[in-house]
Amino acid sequence: MNKNIVIIGGVAAGPKAACRLKRLQPAWNVTVIDQDSLISYGGCGIPYYVCGDVSDEKELRSTSYHMLRDEAFFSAAKGVRVLSKTKALAIDRKGRTVRVENLDSGEQSEIPYDKLLLATGSQSVNLPIPGMDLDGVFTVANLHKAIAIKERIAKGQVAKAVVVGGGAIGIEMAEAFTDLWGVETSLVEYMPQLLPRIIDWHLSAMLKTHLEEKNVSVFTGESATEILGDGQGRVTGVRTGKRTLAADLVIMAVGVRPRSELAREAGLHVTPWGGIKVNHRLQTTDPDIYAAGDCIATTHLVTGKDAFAPFGSLANREGRIAADNMAGRASYFPGVVGSYIMKAFDRCIGSTGISYETALAEGFAADYSLTAPADRAHFYPGEAVVIYQMVFDRNTRKVLGLQGFGMMNDSISARIDTAAGLIAKGATIEDFMTVEMAYSPPFSAAIDSINAAAYVADNICAGLLRKVDLRRFLAWMEDFGREPDWVVLDIRHPQEAAASVQRFGRERWLAIPYNEVRQRHQEVPVDKTMIILCDAGTRSFEVQVVLDAAGKKNSLVLCGGSNVIRRMGVDWLSGT
Amino acid sequence: MNKNIVIIGGVAAGPKAACRLKRLQPAWNVTVIDQDSLISYGGCGIPYYVCGDVSDEKELRSTSYHMLRDEAFFSAAKGVRVLSKTKALAIDRKGRTVRVENLDSGEQSEIPYDKLLLATGSQSVNLPIPGMDLDGVFTVANLHKAIAIKERIAKGQVAKAVVVGGGAIGIEMAEAFTDLWGVETSLVEYMPQLLPRIIDWHLSAMLKTHLEEKNVSVFTGESATEILGDGQGRVTGVRTGKRTLAADLVIMAVGVRPRSELAREAGLHVTPWGGIKVNHRLQTTDPDIYAAGDCIATTHLVTGKDAFAPFGSLANREGRIAADNMAGRASYFPGVVGSYIMKAFDRCIGSTGISYETALAEGFAADYSLTAPADRAHFYPGEAVVIYQMVFDRNTRKVLGLQGFGMMNDSISARIDTAAGLIAKGATIEDFMTVEMAYSPPFSAAIDSINAAAYVADNICAGLLRKVDLRRFLAWMEDFGREPDWVVLDIRHPQEAAASVQRFGRERWLAIPYNEVRQRHQEVPVDKTMIILCDAGTRSFEVQVVLDAAGKKNSLVLCGGSNVIRRMGVDWLSGT
Repeated sequence: MNKNIVIIGGVAAGPKAACRLKRLQPAWNVTVIDQDSLISYGGCGIPYYVCGDVSDEKELRSTSYHMLRDEAFFSAAKGVRVLSKTKALAIDRKGRTVRVENLDSGEQSEIPYDKLLLATGSQSVNLPIPGMDLDGVFTVANLHKAIAIKERIAKGQVAKAVVVGGGAIGIEMAEAFTDLWGVETSLVEYMPQLLPRIIDWHLSAMLKTHLEEKNVSVFTGESATEILGDGQGRVTGVRTGKRTLAADLVIMAVGVRPRSELAREAGLHVTPWGGIKVNHRLQTTDPDIYAAGDCIATTHLVTGKDAFAPFGSLANREGRIAADNMAGRASYFPGVVGSYIMKAFDRCIGSTGISYETALAEGFAADYSLTAPADRAHFYPGEAVVIYQMVFDRNTRKVLGLQGFGMMNDSISARIDTAAGLIAKGATIEDFMTVEMAYSPPFSAAIDSINAAAYVADNICAGLLRKVDLRRFLAWMEDFGREPDWVVLDIRHPQEAAASVQRFGRERWLAIPYNEVRQRHQEVPVDKTMIILCDAGTRSFEVQVVLDAAGKKNSLVLCGGSNVIRRMGVDWLSGT
Repeated sequence: MNKNIVIIGGVAAGPKAACRLKRLQPAWNVTVIDQDSLISYGGCGIPYYVCGDVSDEKELRSTSYHMLRDEAFFSAAKGVRVLSKTKALAIDRKGRTVRVENLDSGEQSEIPYDKLLLATGSQSVNLPIPGMDLDGVFTVANLHKAIAIKERIAKGQVAKAVVVGGGAIGIEMAEAFTDLWGVETSLVEYMPQLLPRIIDWHLSAMLKTHLEEKNVSVFTGESATEILGDGQGRVTGVRTGKRTLAADLVIMAVGVRPRSELAREAGLHVTPWGGIKVNHRLQTTDPDIYAAGDCIATTHLVTGKDAFAPFGSLANREGRIAADNMAGRASYFPGVVGSYIMKAFDRCIGSTGISYETALAEGFAADYSLTAPADRAHFYPGEAVVIYQMVFDRNTRKVLGLQGFGMMNDSISARIDTAAGLIAKGATIEDFMTVEMAYSPPFSAAIDSINAAAYVADNICAGLLRKVDLRRFLAWMEDFGREPDWVVLDIRHPQEAAASVQRFGRERWLAIPYNEVRQRHQEVPVDKTMIILCDAGTRSFEVQVVLDAAGKKNSLVLCGGSNVIRRMGVDWLSGT
């Protein structure tokens, strides 16, 4: 009893599901429809194609064994019929057909299905501002756009670029322009920080600092209000609320939204923000219609709410699960934790679960630890400091999220992935304290950074560690009048502390080396709030315990220490 | 009500527990006893000190903020009293004292305790063979030995070295000698493979191949039977059952065992192999005596049995948990999964959970997937093949272990760590199929290698994928008479397959390119067993499905494909 399977969408979830279906039900007829001529490509690779790391766009749509994933390949190798340049116009759920239009001939026809998969993906959000139609304004919505962008740069037509949108794609495109092509690039983000809602503000500030070190001009908290042209239809710049930035090329990367019009018009349940509702089998509200990839609303495993998670990796996982269920093999998609990682020049930034800001907004008893450990044994050559923030709920002790910022290697990836697996299982701080990270000096520290982050979280939960609010501390550093009774207790090496002591005076900046505090704690005043500062925060906690034991409970720890605030752009902090 | 805490052992678990105790109970008296003069060092860093990556042994016993962790440091900074060169002779449990000897003066005394922690570590196993006392024969038991070894090499006294023992330390020492010092090095292991009981034989064979590429002579399945001398007490070589190897330096690295004599003599419960029995609070059978680190018997979370897990990272974790419980703060140590990782020249090898061989021995319905994916997006520059083996139970679908072999970076570390977290929670193949690895082309493939390994495991469990036994296949390649009805179906690119077809003839080696099999399956004979070969095994599985659907169910997949067998040393296999 062969069945007809129709899949709408040929980029990630669609092809994955089609191939899996043919492996489970080799005799079934599987048809993939896509309105584009280019299918089955690695969209996440576009920035690496634009920058030149990937020389030919064909690499993005080839297999690992160097076969081009085009219609002929899917037919011969996979037994899957692909109809490209074919637009799905409407779904007739009663008649079980999809009305399609051949975009070359304009001819319309009906394709019958027994089961249908919607893998329609996402589309770029367009800002409703003047000038969006000017020549030289691009989204990075598909491979055609990428090819056009690269062509302009390679031909030397681009001296200045403006990227609108400080999400992953915007940042990756800014890197591509600056790093390999030497294009003078500005990045504009209307939210007050880069990677809003994904990364908390202080890690985001570290990323911004690094982008600026790499000659990307970053303007956060600024909206693009108009795209400017030369009168002949070519782009010349971008106007924001605060300035005008010249540009030969403008990238609009202000986000994507689910492409779900077909589903909505067919009467399937779609969330207000456009995500197609699916159950854990990836069935829509019509049991013969499934959906997978960027177009769905999935469940966030931390909040329990609907989530939009447009990642190529998830699209692949979901495609396989949808195919299993369509083929009659029960398979379960639990939902997402929102794992995220990106390269930004020489740095890596990643996260999983939810941010502190989100956790507060969701009503958790949210708190966080902020640490600055070494990414491998501190004596191993090439080790580097990495910043982690672990978000947790003080009441349940559940870990809600983990974020990391550090050098461009796989070290953060290891911790984010580990955390993702644990958070999906509802793990607590205790689970993170004991998770058995493989140790050898070239790979990690004996006390792994993820264990260390959990230790600090544990100490905070237990009331052993009292920390200062970072935003408040930075404000105080800019204006000592804000917190007249605050003093820094700098426990770093005297050489590291000396310049700050000289700059701010002993009234504001008291220096007692870490290993002398036990003997010299009588020098610490009790009528001031002592903000304890070291390199990473660990010694500050030890000193807080010592002061507490001496009856001086007036201290707060600067978690992450100078390693954190220096990376956030506090460049006047002395020391090596 | 201050308490006296005595900790025996000052390397890893001991100092960690001491410092944690002082943070929880600042007023308590904490004393650490160690028979050595050097304390609190990173023993796992010894090979990197010997090879020169770490220039000064002091780096191994310094903090990340460059303070030497000696007695004065522990006293001033931590408030911990350290008695080095002090040997614990006996525990009087009734009187709650430890009898100690000052090794300088010979003076004995009693130290009273309210609670005692045994952190006595492990000691090198000595082989009962002649010549062990010769000058130039070393264990890597402590920092003194390491300093002596490096001194000899640095002085040019070592042209040839023999390392006895193919575990991590042996391999790391062989690398240290060969890579930086150019010492002609042989490695002897009495078991038939390197890293026995940790890694399965085929991944171990890949490691051996790589060591040999790096000019280490590896002799597995050979016992060292005698250490040879020059008559003046200096070592000249090592005799094995099969050969005599010249050596100016011999490293004995045949393993370690718990140092638990004190515990045994005090009447505490100790396992037959010497591990001090502890509960999940790390209490011994005397509730006032705790134990942590290499000296304990912990619980293996996969087998449920007693396990010996002598890792510096675990010692640190255990030290913290013991301290919490000693200080009256309930803390739970669940046990171990045995995470393991090491650098070997340009390669990394790691594992967690149990091996296939162990799983069979433990009575699991054990099976495994063997995969050869790319460690990041296949189009991203510098991507490389990595080999994973996932061990699972066919009945429960629980994942029992994961092993990886690949390039020297943190990519395997990420997958091993993720797996460790999941395996500790009893995760199934489904959990590994959906674990949300953070994706971006510089870090991973859209279908992450850990997800891919689980997919193959799923296909094996479901009976969709039938694989050939690797050992049997390799035997057949050496002697076609063994399996007269076997034929390879080589589905790689014709240029890759050509040389093998020519070498073995079309009777034994049938080449049909992957994307032509659907059209040409009538060429595949039904009276032979077809062993399907590709690069990585994934296409072979697809072809098996196609042949099955055509009614030809006589095929077996070579999991991991040519990527696996080439890394195991099959160098005549043609292709790029």
